[in-house]
Amino acid sequence: MNPTTMLYEGKAKQIYATDEPSVVLVRYKDSATAFNGVKKAEIAGKGELNNRISSYFFRLLTEQGIPNHFVKEVSALEQLVRKVSIIPLEVVVRNRTAGSLAKRLGFEEGIILPEPIVEFYYKKDELGDPLVTEDHVLVLDLATKEQLKTLKKTALKVNRFLSQWLEERNLILVDFKLEFGIDEKGEILLADEISPDTCRFWDKDTKERLDKDRFRHDLGRVIESYQEIWNRLEGEKNV
Amino acid sequence: MNPTTMLYEGKAKQIYATDEPSVVLVRYKDSATAFNGVKKAEIAGKGELNNRISSYFFRLLTEQGIPNHFVKEVSALEQLVRKVSIIPLEVVVRNRTAGSLAKRLGFEEGIILPEPIVEFYYKKDELGDPLVTEDHVLVLDLATKEQLKTLKKTALKVNRFLSQWLEERNLILVDFKLEFGIDEKGEILLADEISPDTCRFWDKDTKERLDKDRFRHDLGRVIESYQEIWNRLEGEKNV
Ligand SMILES: Nc1ncnc2c1ncn2[C@@H]1O[C@H](COP(=O)(O)OP(=O)(O)OP(=O)(O)O)[C@@H](O)[C@H]1O
Ligand SMILES: Nc1ncnc2c1ncn2[C@@H]1O[C@H](COP(=O)(O)OP(=O)(O)OP(=O)(O)O)[C@@H](O)[C@H]1O
Ligand SMILES: [Mg+2]
Ligand SMILES: [Mg+2]
Repeated sequence: MNPTTMLYEGKAKQIYATDEPSVVLVRYKDSATAFNGVKKAEIAGKGELNNRISSYFFRLLTEQGIPNHFVKEVSALEQLVRKVSIIPLEVVVRNRTAGSLAKRLGFEEGIILPEPIVEFYYKKDELGDPLVTEDHVLVLDLATKEQLKTLKKTALKVNRFLSQWLEERNLILVDFKLEFGIDEKGEILLADEISPDTCRFWDKDTKERLDKDRFRHDLGRVIESYQEIWNRLEGEKNV
Repeated sequence: MNPTTMLYEGKAKQIYATDEPSVVLVRYKDSATAFNGVKKAEIAGKGELNNRISSYFFRLLTEQGIPNHFVKEVSALEQLVRKVSIIPLEVVVRNRTAGSLAKRLGFEEGIILPEPIVEFYYKKDELGDPLVTEDHVLVLDLATKEQLKTLKKTALKVNRFLSQWLEERNLILVDFKLEFGIDEKGEILLADEISPDTCRFWDKDTKERLDKDRFRHDLGRVIESYQEIWNRLEGEKNV
C-alpha cells in the first residue's frame, strides 16, 4: 500500500492513492486555518497529534459498531482509510451553545441545550459553508431523506458514546463536526477526522478550551492543549 | 373603535390600541426598507396599496377557512385586526429560488423547486433575522413542535391556494413571508400583512418583478408594480 499520486490537498490533510483502489492514505499537516481560511498558521506537531487522536477515536467507534472509513494508522502522520465519495455536508452535533450557534441565536457560550441538536452545513467554500435546512439538502440533491435520517442517527449515536467516554476523562464534548461518505458498495461511512480541529473539548472543572478555539481566538498554548487531549485518551493505558 | 395610543411603530406599519382590548388598528406607512433596514425610502401611495392588497388577501384566506387576524378595512390606510402576540418567526414559503435562498445555496433566481419549501427565520433585528432550523426554534423556545407543525401546514395551505389563485391572474407566486401570532384564547392566527412588500410576484409571461425587489434592486417603476398587482386582483370584479 505505498502512497502514489496525491489525489487531493485540503487545508489540514493530503489524500494519496495507494495500490489498493478502495483505500487511500491520509497525511495530516501542521497547517491550521480558521474563519473560512482567512486565518492561517503552521502549528508544529499538530499533524502528528491529530493523526493519533483521530485514529484513536475511530478505533473506539469501530468497537461501538459505527461504520467508518478507518483502516489503520501507518506512521506518525499517516493513516489508511477506505476511499469514499464525501457527502458535501458538515454534520454538526451540539451539546452546549458555542461558536456560530451562540452567535447566530444570540446566546452566551456554554449553555447546556435541552437535548443535543444536529445541524447540517453545506460544504462549499465559495458560499462560506452555509447552514442549511433538511429541505435545502434535498433541493441541492446532496442526500436523500433516508440518508439524512441515517446521518442524524449516527451522529447522535457518536455523540452519546463520545460524550460519556470523554466525561470519564474529565472533558466536556461541547460540539463536533462529522463528515460522511459513500463507499464503492454504496454504504454510508463516517469519514474525515475527529480531533481538536473538529471538536470543542472543555475541561470539565475549569471549562478551559482544549481545542482549535485556542487558535481561533489567540488563547495561546494551542499545541499544549492538543497534547493534553492526547494525554487524557492515552491515560487509559495507565489506569 | 377609535384608535387611541400607538402601541408600536414598525418599519412599514403603526399599531394603535382601540377601545376594544382584543382589537388593534394597523396603519400602513409609505416607508420602504430593505437589507435589514440599511436601504430606506418613502414611496408615495405604497401604504394605501398594501392596505388594500393585504385586506383583499386576508378576506380570501378567511373564505378558505384559514384562521387569521383580519377584522376589516376601515380607511385608505387602516385596517382593524385581532391583537395577537406575534411569534418572532418569519415563516417563508418558496416555490422557486430567489433572494436569500438563491444566494445561500448558489442558485440562479427562478428555478422551480421540486416541491414548495418552508423556512423559518428568527425575527431579531440585532441578529439580522437569521435562518433557523426547527431545533433552533425549540432551543429558543419560540414555538413548540406541535405549533411548528401547524405553522408549516398552514403556510403550505396558504401557498397552495394563493399560487393557484394568482396563476389565474397571470402571476407567479415565487415566495412569501408570513407571520403568526397567538390570540387571547391561545389560538394561532395568521397575522401581519400579505403584500408586494412580503411576497415575490412575477408576471407569468415576461417574468417581470412586480414586488419589493424593484425597490431592493433599483429596478424602477416601484409603485406602478404595486398598482399592477392591485389591478390584477381588482380585475376580478370586471370579469
Ligand atoms: N475516506 C475518505 N475518502 C476520500 N476523501 C476523504 C476521506 N476522508 C476525508 N476526506 C476528504 O479529504 C479532504 C482533505 O481533508 P481536509 O480536512 O484537509 O479538507 P479541508 O480543507 O478541511 O476541507 P475541504 O473538504 O473543503 O477540502 C476533505 O475534503 C475530506 O472531506
Ligand atoms: N395582529 C397583530 N397584533 C399585534 N401585532 C401585529 C399584528 N400583526 C402584525 N403585527 C406586528 O406589527 C408590527 C409592525 O409591523 P411592521 O411591518 O411595520 O414591522 P417591521 O418593522 O416589519 O418589523 P418588526 O416586526 O421587526 O417591527 C410588526 O412587529 C408585526 O409583527
Ligand atoms: Mg477538514
Ligand atoms: Mg413587517
